[in-house]
Amino acid sequence: MSLNALIPIVFGILGLWMAQRIFRIVKAYPKGESKVAAIGDAIHLGAMVFMRREYTVLGAFAAVLVVVLFIFLGWKTALAFVVGALTSALAGFIGMNTATQANVRTTVAAHTKGPAEALTVAFFGGSIMGLAVASLGLLGLGTLYLLFGGDPETAHAIHGFGMGASSVALFSRVGGGIFTKSADVGADLVGKIEAGIPEDDPRNPGVIADNVGDNVGDVAGMGSDIFESYCGAMIATIAIASTLAVDVIDPIGERQALMFLPLALSSAGLLCSIAGIWLVRHFSSQTPERALRIGTIGASLLFMAVAYLVIVGTGISSAVWGAVLIGALGGIVIGLVTEYYTSSKPVASIALAGETGAATVIITGFAVGMRSVIVPLLTISAIIFVSNALVGLYGVGIAAVGMLATVGITMAIDAYGPVADNAGGIAEMAGLGVETRRITDSLDELGNTTAAIGKGFAIGAAALAALAIITAYIESVSLHVPDFELLLSDPMVIIGLFIGGILPFAIAAITMTAVGEAAFAMINEIRRQFREITGLLEGTAEPDTARCVDIATTAALKKMVLPGVIAIAAPWVVGFVLGPAALGGMLGGALLGCVLLALTMANAGGAWDNAKKFVEKGHHGGKGSDTHKATVVGDTVGDPFKDTSGPSMNILINVMAIVSLVIAPLLGNSLLG
Amino acid sequence: MSLNALIPIVFGILGLWMAQRIFRIVKAYPKGESKVAAIGDAIHLGAMVFMRREYTVLGAFAAVLVVVLFIFLGWKTALAFVVGALTSALAGFIGMNTATQANVRTTVAAHTKGPAEALTVAFFGGSIMGLAVASLGLLGLGTLYLLFGGDPETAHAIHGFGMGASSVALFSRVGGGIFTKSADVGADLVGKIEAGIPEDDPRNPGVIADNVGDNVGDVAGMGSDIFESYCGAMIATIAIASTLAVDVIDPIGERQALMFLPLALSSAGLLCSIAGIWLVRHFSSQTPERALRIGTIGASLLFMAVAYLVIVGTGISSAVWGAVLIGALGGIVIGLVTEYYTSSKPVASIALAGETGAATVIITGFAVGMRSVIVPLLTISAIIFVSNALVGLYGVGIAAVGMLATVGITMAIDAYGPVADNAGGIAEMAGLGVETRRITDSLDELGNTTAAIGKGFAIGAAALAALAIITAYIESVSLHVPDFELLLSDPMVIIGLFIGGILPFAIAAITMTAVGEAAFAMINEIRRQFREITGLLEGTAEPDTARCVDIATTAALKKMVLPGVIAIAAPWVVGFVLGPAALGGMLGGALLGCVLLALTMANAGGAWDNAKKFVEKGHHGGKGSDTHKATVVGDTVGDPFKDTSGPSMNILINVMAIVSLVIAPLLGNSLLG
Repeated sequence: MSLNALIPIVFGILGLWMAQRIFRIVKAYPKGESKVAAIGDAIHLGAMVFMRREYTVLGAFAAVLVVVLFIFLGWKTALAFVVGALTSALAGFIGMNTATQANVRTTVAAHTKGPAEALTVAFFGGSIMGLAVASLGLLGLGTLYLLFGGDPETAHAIHGFGMGASSVALFSRVGGGIFTKSADVGADLVGKIEAGIPEDDPRNPGVIADNVGDNVGDVAGMGSDIFESYCGAMIATIAIASTLAVDVIDPIGERQALMFLPLALSSAGLLCSIAGIWLVRHFSSQTPERALRIGTIGASLLFMAVAYLVIVGTGISSAVWGAVLIGALGGIVIGLVTEYYTSSKPVASIALAGETGAATVIITGFAVGMRSVIVPLLTISAIIFVSNALVGLYGVGIAAVGMLATVGITMAIDAYGPVADNAGGIAEMAGLGVETRRITDSLDELGNTTAAIGKGFAIGAAALAALAIITAYIESVSLHVPDFELLLSDPMVIIGLFIGGILPFAIAAITMTAVGEAAFAMINEIRRQFREITGLLEGTAEPDTARCVDIATTAALKKMVLPGVIAIAAPWVVGFVLGPAALGGMLGGALLGCVLLALTMANAGGAWDNAKKFVEKGHHGGKGSDTHKATVVGDTVGDPFKDTSGPSMNILINVMAIVSLVIAPLLGNSLLG
Repeated sequence: MSLNALIPIVFGILGLWMAQRIFRIVKAYPKGESKVAAIGDAIHLGAMVFMRREYTVLGAFAAVLVVVLFIFLGWKTALAFVVGALTSALAGFIGMNTATQANVRTTVAAHTKGPAEALTVAFFGGSIMGLAVASLGLLGLGTLYLLFGGDPETAHAIHGFGMGASSVALFSRVGGGIFTKSADVGADLVGKIEAGIPEDDPRNPGVIADNVGDNVGDVAGMGSDIFESYCGAMIATIAIASTLAVDVIDPIGERQALMFLPLALSSAGLLCSIAGIWLVRHFSSQTPERALRIGTIGASLLFMAVAYLVIVGTGISSAVWGAVLIGALGGIVIGLVTEYYTSSKPVASIALAGETGAATVIITGFAVGMRSVIVPLLTISAIIFVSNALVGLYGVGIAAVGMLATVGITMAIDAYGPVADNAGGIAEMAGLGVETRRITDSLDELGNTTAAIGKGFAIGAAALAALAIITAYIESVSLHVPDFELLLSDPMVIIGLFIGGILPFAIAAITMTAVGEAAFAMINEIRRQFREITGLLEGTAEPDTARCVDIATTAALKKMVLPGVIAIAAPWVVGFVLGPAALGGMLGGALLGCVLLALTMANAGGAWDNAKKFVEKGHHGGKGSDTHKATVVGDTVGDPFKDTSGPSMNILINVMAIVSLVIAPLLGNSLLG
């Protein structure tokens, strides 16, 4: 183990230090006068309470899993699991904490200093999340690699890190998704439609919960989603390299160099992300759109160059660089396609369909979502083909690493969206006037675009990471089960494929139903407050917002259990009962089902949302018209599609893949397979 | 080749003779007085015109394919293709012709003789379709088996029959699905909502087209769907047997016996179906529900017993009987699950969701559809597991044959539904009064239940048949490509899997959009007639119904081309460019995607439809309430789900599988694989 192995750790610490510095800058911005600050505090507090209660539940689950892992796979895997779970939870906590402090400061900056400063605060708020995700991933995984990576006997323990990260991510994503949409739907339905008050009106008891939800769902949920893909891609590539016949791809034949490469590239990517963040800051006086684009594209280009130096510098074939390149480019393509399907022509077609009612809005939007799977899946196929042609299966893993290496800036831009969204909500609640709202609206609108790109990217990255993990799983089983082959003609593989296909549909159904039920509880509470608190609608009495936050929290925590347990338990059950071949088939079926549903649901949901906004801008009769009402139905259907069930798919496949990889050495004997 | 080989031909002729006898009985029933007869004639004529025009388009396509097959695979495959296409088209023609003559006679029987006679006519009308499907399948396939089956060199040519049947089926299903829903949506939207006249009102210019659509979509479409699954299962099982190491499963080792068994079992199944039809007739004085149940269950039980005699009588291991049994039972389970999800609790939950608006109706119904995939896919998995454990991969094929053997009665009961539905429409149009309508309504309601069961059965049967064909494909490629293996760890297989997953989503999106566009043209025409024909709404002038039929026909024929071409071309493109491994992966991905979408769309659609009917019976405010309006949105979304896109999935996977099997011998060299 050379000194090289310290690089990811050093870079991880450096990234955290940068995050800390940026956090200080954000904190230095004023929180504003008492009313604004109070609203900000209420959102912050609600988010923190949710996190604490969520982590209590998670802790109990993690404790059970630690014991199970300790018994079956020894203390090293158990330890790695704990480290993975803790770093994932910590990344979520840091992200939420900063996002809920940056939102109110963005509002104040927009009110007192104008758009450039507001962009800076919002983007810096997101950047801390981005840097935390990348740095903690490198720090945690780098440390474990230093401890266990050198010895092939112990290297397997590292997979526990991925399982820890993915398990936490799954609960965060599902719980956060249920929270945010139950609050959103509940607040909107009673406030906007029944009470006839505007969105984000301070008289609405659910409005704080709604804003908490944006952070809980979009910041923490998305952060843990990307975190586990990021770590999963590295872990899988390390695993593939550890079992590969290296002489095929590497003239020097240094297995260690190939194993270490994911960590080295991600370290380089972190540096490029920091450079990208600096670029955004530097160009913040330009339009926000331009500033963000310069930052991401700059970071990507820089990474492509640096990756070449890293690869060739460590004596690895430049063909590997080709795989990294196609992965990085593929991520951009998938993001742009997602943006297309949630804007321009597809959105206009949904708005037009609104003229013949809600049913045609649903049909058209659903067709848009289904069509949107074509290019991303073909892109992923092209990445697989090229990277495999260049350097074999290792190429698929390293392409995933390449796609995710600049996660620091991607995630920063993604997390910027909810911060800007919240800033607008706070401005409305505090009554800061039209001009402030105009600035936050323009930041928010851009945030919707970046969020669409981010979602597409997250799905593509998760798919490629999952594929790499599945590849590592197959290789790992091959080491432990003589003559293991995953033949698609094997009935057990087909059975696994079917079971794998069931799971995303079942989880999607469960999470969609959960949102409906949780929203129902929220609706009843908000109705109760409007009924029982005298003077609430007149603005002379305060709503009990904490109670609404509590209801959303309780519902989310209760409803996240079943999907989480199914996802984590499925590989154990299928693996031990039907055997490793069925489990391999299950992962294949789940991968396909998850990617198809994730893309369809995310893009249909985004397209419906934007079709409603398009009509609200005055097309087809504008706000209040029948066409508008029809598109509101689409938007409401799209809410759980794009923010709950759809995003759960990414983690579902990754958690099942990584659990399978962890238990692979145990699958020598199964009941029926 | 022994005399045995004549059995399926003899049985096929016997079945057709029976069908002819039943047709005479139906024709002997009166067509009623001039108004009723005129409406019946208009529907009949519209359906026949559609068929003629559809078959003209199909003929052109078939001609191209015949030339291609002749060049690449020789005259035998080309001939088999022609026979398959012709028998499939003939089955569709016979079914349509009888259904559109039985409908008006059912109306008259209901009006003049009561429910028992009406049930008899409607059921006999469906029975002719059922017998035609089974008999023509046996006759065509039996003849080809007699010609080519004995020689391993020529046996491959038989697959062309399946390709012919599936190609015709695909166009019929897609074209019929677009026709029926564009007419339905168009007539309803303008008639019921804009003009405020009841459903099936004779003043509505689209009402004849709507009734033609029921026949075109539900009779001919469903018939060709089942026909190609029925033939596909037999062809695949013959192919598997022809390459199998028989001594493993058959103590006597008679390969010919195993190859012939699918034909023998289906012949026995035809006999049992005739017995079942006789049972329904015999018990027609009981409630219709009871009579139909006695018929199907009686035929199934009889078949299970006869199958045992056939299998053991021909000296084949009784383990094969176990596979047949599990297949036959599995089909029943899947049908019953479908019935559950489109009735009782799931439907009540959608109706309840209607109280909070259309959006929650959509979300809840969609979740119901997604949940409904669980049990059917687990059932198919169980069938695969048990049949494979009993007799290897041959078991999977013969289980599919077992599921489909009593297709004569299954199809009869299924085709009975649209006949009864039409009878009700004619009664309404002719103004035959409340009592007649009450009888036809009760027959129609039962038809909806049997249709739900039939749809679930069709999906299960198609899935199992496709799996058998895919198995045959893999074995066939193995004969031609040395060391061929379909490894799920092979990147080309993964790429194929992704492409296969794209296809059902793309075809679903295309067909859904097609319905929307065709309905739009229909809406404009109906609006034009109401505007321009003076006295139409007052009932003093006749609508130009033929024009509406023509519009639906033209739209359906135009829009069926793209999905059809994609489905037939995809295996060629993937197979020759990416190679046989990618094609195998594609079939796996498409199978999974098709089954998942087919179940979700069919059951969500059925559940939405029944939720609307549930509300119309007076629940949650009844007809005209806001809840009712919300469920109408669900029903309209469900229309293309359950009657266009969903049913297309069955044939999509089968047509791609059978085309792959046909081109398997050519896949030795590919561009990239």
